[in-house]
Amino acid sequence: MEIALLGGTGDIGEGLALRWARDTEHSVVIGSRDPEKATSRANDYDELLSARGVDIDVTGVGNEEAAATADVVVVSVPPEYATDTVDTIASQLDDETVLVSPAVAMRRDGAGFHYEAPEAGSVAEAIEDTAPNDVPIVGAFQNLAAGALSDLDRDLAADVIVTSDDAEAKALVSSLAAEIDGLRALDGGPLAVTALVESMTPLLINLAMNNDGMHDLGVRFQ
Amino acid sequence: MEIALLGGTGDIGEGLALRWARDTEHSVVIGSRDPEKATSRANDYDELLSARGVDIDVTGVGNEEAAATADVVVVSVPPEYATDTVDTIASQLDDETVLVSPAVAMRRDGAGFHYEAPEAGSVAEAIEDTAPNDVPIVGAFQNLAAGALSDLDRDLAADVIVTSDDAEAKALVSSLAAEIDGLRALDGGPLAVTALVESMTPLLINLAMNNDGMHDLGVRFQ
Repeated sequence: MEIALLGGTGDIGEGLALRWARDTEHSVVIGSRDPEKATSRANDYDELLSARGVDIDVTGVGNEEAAATADVVVVSVPPEYATDTVDTIASQLDDETVLVSPAVAMRRDGAGFHYEAPEAGSVAEAIEDTAPNDVPIVGAFQNLAAGALSDLDRDLAADVIVTSDDAEAKALVSSLAAEIDGLRALDGGPLAVTALVESMTPLLINLAMNNDGMHDLGVRFQ
Repeated sequence: MEIALLGGTGDIGEGLALRWARDTEHSVVIGSRDPEKATSRANDYDELLSARGVDIDVTGVGNEEAAATADVVVVSVPPEYATDTVDTIASQLDDETVLVSPAVAMRRDGAGFHYEAPEAGSVAEAIEDTAPNDVPIVGAFQNLAAGALSDLDRDLAADVIVTSDDAEAKALVSSLAAEIDGLRALDGGPLAVTALVESMTPLLINLAMNNDGMHDLGVRFQ
């Protein structure tokens, strides 16, 4: 399986790239608007993994090239760039390419972080509105803390809620999530309820800000 | 400490009444629009607790009488009755009475449950707008599953997120939450971010509906 991480040069894309490379046999491709930046970051990841005895090549290319051959494309860019990014790769997408939405739109004021739902209802649904009609869309990975994910010394113990209207795509992404050590995939329902998953992210950040000793929080349902 | 549970004749009010009576030394008063119903349910709870060797009197009275002497008033009524209920007890409230909002407004369609934020932003903020100005308002207990809470054979292992603009009231309710075996209280921030806590309730219900073996879910942040 080939997984492309658009915006895989930082934040949650970095951690997913490192963990999929370390914990699975899948090919991991970093995409960026700037192919040189993607290559440079991919080399950084290779060195970091190599130092841990993981001998696997993460490659870095432009977003469009990354999407062209990938089975699964994770749109791990800031929410305000999510639909534009999907636009630029639209010609590379078809019903065989699963598009994953991990981004969350938030705003901050004196009270803390708030959820800022896009007009479509969620970032995942905004991506659905933008992508070609036959492309399966999946919401996942919104609630993972980038800091915990990219720190390979840190053991994860978190749930990933997966939403989609496409059962096959949902099963595939659930399986990819569960292949990362310490992650469990849960079925969150159809894409139309993804706002509930996205809105847990500002909650997690508020909890981390307001409670001593809670950093890079994850969530477990039990 | 005297805790009044308005709408304590069912749902989450029942579980909180039973667990506070069993796990703490606090006085628990059940309130209802119908004082006879409150008395009858309080007697049921007494019998249930007595059968477990807990010799404590839960009393049942009308909502107004329940609020009159209580230190903490939990508005555990359905969300559509929350502000009306606060209206009927307004004359009993002052800056010494902490008002707790555990209700969540939801709607259901084919995709599952959705969060339905009141115009005020959250049920907690709608209660704040209705209550006399000096009454401290606290959001808490929204994410507890009524079924798990009222089943005293079930060990809880869940977090309660507490939001408030009043530090003292927040500390008090956090302490009352943590006194129930298996519950941990977390500081969620000011009342203005309570929508994030409320919106986790439909998410929990969707997860319970969509995943085998997950009933009456709780949540743990780690």
